[in-house]
Amino acid sequence: MGKQLDLLRAKYLPLIEQEIRKFFKEKISTQKDEVVVKYYEELSSYILRGGKRLRPLALISSYYGFKSRQEGNIVKASISVELLHNSSLIHDDIMDESLKRRGGPSFHYQMEDWSRLSQNTPPPRNAGISIGILGGDSLIELGLEALLESGFPKNSLIKAAFEYLTAYRKLIEGQLLDLYLSTVTMPTEEEVIRMLSLKTGTLFSASLVMGGILAGAPRKALVFLKNFGQRVGVAFQLQDDILGLYGDEEVIGKPADSDVKEGKRTLLIVKTWQLADEVNKKKLLFILGNKNIGADELNYVRNIVKELGVLDYTKETALNLLRENERDIEANKNLFERNFVEFLRELNEIVVARSF
Amino acid sequence: MGKQLDLLRAKYLPLIEQEIRKFFKEKISTQKDEVVVKYYEELSSYILRGGKRLRPLALISSYYGFKSRQEGNIVKASISVELLHNSSLIHDDIMDESLKRRGGPSFHYQMEDWSRLSQNTPPPRNAGISIGILGGDSLIELGLEALLESGFPKNSLIKAAFEYLTAYRKLIEGQLLDLYLSTVTMPTEEEVIRMLSLKTGTLFSASLVMGGILAGAPRKALVFLKNFGQRVGVAFQLQDDILGLYGDEEVIGKPADSDVKEGKRTLLIVKTWQLADEVNKKKLLFILGNKNIGADELNYVRNIVKELGVLDYTKETALNLLRENERDIEANKNLFERNFVEFLRELNEIVVARSF
Repeated sequence: MGKQLDLLRAKYLPLIEQEIRKFFKEKISTQKDEVVVKYYEELSSYILRGGKRLRPLALISSYYGFKSRQEGNIVKASISVELLHNSSLIHDDIMDESLKRRGGPSFHYQMEDWSRLSQNTPPPRNAGISIGILGGDSLIELGLEALLESGFPKNSLIKAAFEYLTAYRKLIEGQLLDLYLSTVTMPTEEEVIRMLSLKTGTLFSASLVMGGILAGAPRKALVFLKNFGQRVGVAFQLQDDILGLYGDEEVIGKPADSDVKEGKRTLLIVKTWQLADEVNKKKLLFILGNKNIGADELNYVRNIVKELGVLDYTKETALNLLRENERDIEANKNLFERNFVEFLRELNEIVVARSF
Repeated sequence: MGKQLDLLRAKYLPLIEQEIRKFFKEKISTQKDEVVVKYYEELSSYILRGGKRLRPLALISSYYGFKSRQEGNIVKASISVELLHNSSLIHDDIMDESLKRRGGPSFHYQMEDWSRLSQNTPPPRNAGISIGILGGDSLIELGLEALLESGFPKNSLIKAAFEYLTAYRKLIEGQLLDLYLSTVTMPTEEEVIRMLSLKTGTLFSASLVMGGILAGAPRKALVFLKNFGQRVGVAFQLQDDILGLYGDEEVIGKPADSDVKEGKRTLLIVKTWQLADEVNKKKLLFILGNKNIGADELNYVRNIVKELGVLDYTKETALNLLRENERDIEANKNLFERNFVEFLRELNEIVVARSF
């Protein structure tokens, strides 16, 4: 990994974890109902179970990217985006009926168990989902509370809150689009890119922008941060799709055929389908989402994506985004502290290095 | 109804409806995806289908209750609490598996239909619930956007946003408590009152307080508004429970035995159960939540609640809250404009007049 990112992690990861713990402790301390106390404990233990905290780290690094910083508790402000991220994970897992997350149960599944253990009578069949909905709701408002309690100038807090809300809006719209696209035979390239950009670019981008807002950064810097974050997010996801089809099982941590078996409509698949002839289109549709395929079918997909030039096309699309970022860093580097410019370059390079 | 409330309604109801329409139109105007546009249209039509708008009206009347008002768009600020209210209705209806709301389908049920009609392939079985979760999420953030866009001084906006977030937190905790209590044989009186106060007093109270904050009201006035709103909310709900057991079917708009058949643990039921002997306890438990009961069983419940003095006790509890409000209005009336004092008195009297 990059040097700046390592330094940032070493210094701030423990502070972020500590702040999350402290924040929940404070909120719990005013509670009278035992059930409510336990609920918040489950919620905080879910968040503290893991996660790379990339978004709070991005927010903090961006804040320290400016010489003329405004005063406030930046670590407290930074946990807002982590809580928002977890909120959307919790609600998405209900919608996708996912039972696992970060090496443990998804939150609604965790709470299903919890309600079974903590009550005398059997809980209603949707108990887990119900508490899961509430859990995601709580994290949205707690994230905003953390931000608004961070002590920065009011003007910046309102701007940062807007950024938070807009990011949340885009996450919701991205998830809606995702749900919709999963019912379509084959989405268009434009639809896939839009969905990616809403779901994966948005919050990372907003974290960088929020750090800048709280530092009191000029408008030009905020525009740069927004675009940079969006591009790096989309490039990362395109990368992820490539690894999901060609990656080493041990490295990516899931079976190499799981994307194909899930029938995921990645850019790779959408573009291949567009270029394929009728025979191959039929074959692709038969394979995608089919749980019973073997190595032959997986290799068929791997080959056709390569043969039609779509692997190269996708790599090129991601690389173009990262190259644009390089140019943009070069053109704007005078706006930031040197360490932060290094950090941005590292982020960009990490994504490049991941697979090409 | 009261004169001030009538005047307020005549003047502001059309403005509130218009503001909600305009707000969604603006948010939709920047959208590119047809699905997302349709989603917001469904969401706004759900909200515009009905509702008494008591919370925005309370917020507006409270704002005009102070002579030295700060400048801003108070109608725009007022729709925030209506959006928050609708958010919690949507999520609650998913948890309670309710299919109806305001003479039409609940939002998640409405969206289940929508996804069936708008797609070629059959939607996944939880499509309605998924879009319902997103719908409630959207309204939370849209409510805050409306508030933060209302143009009041930043300081007051942040205070009002905190009030909004705290109200939301309490609504979530109330719903959690409600879910929990539904799995307990018989909750305590304290638990029921706490749940009532969280679920029904909170948002009305917060609406009054937010109006005061945006007007720039002194702290003393805000404390009064908070307590007043809480008490009137709880008294209203106790009233509702009484009507739910003894009310005229045509007046209350639901079968007179529906609370009993649902097995609702109201204060009436909890207190009666505490006072009843073993034989009657068993009988009560057999009847509560039993869908097959007839007029005899309903009358048995009506009688025992009366005989054990619990009907009087509950009326007295509600009346005490309202009397406390009367005294509190008298002691604080110099803080407010005369019309607003009239409005508060009317609200209090309307609740009294409802059943005693």
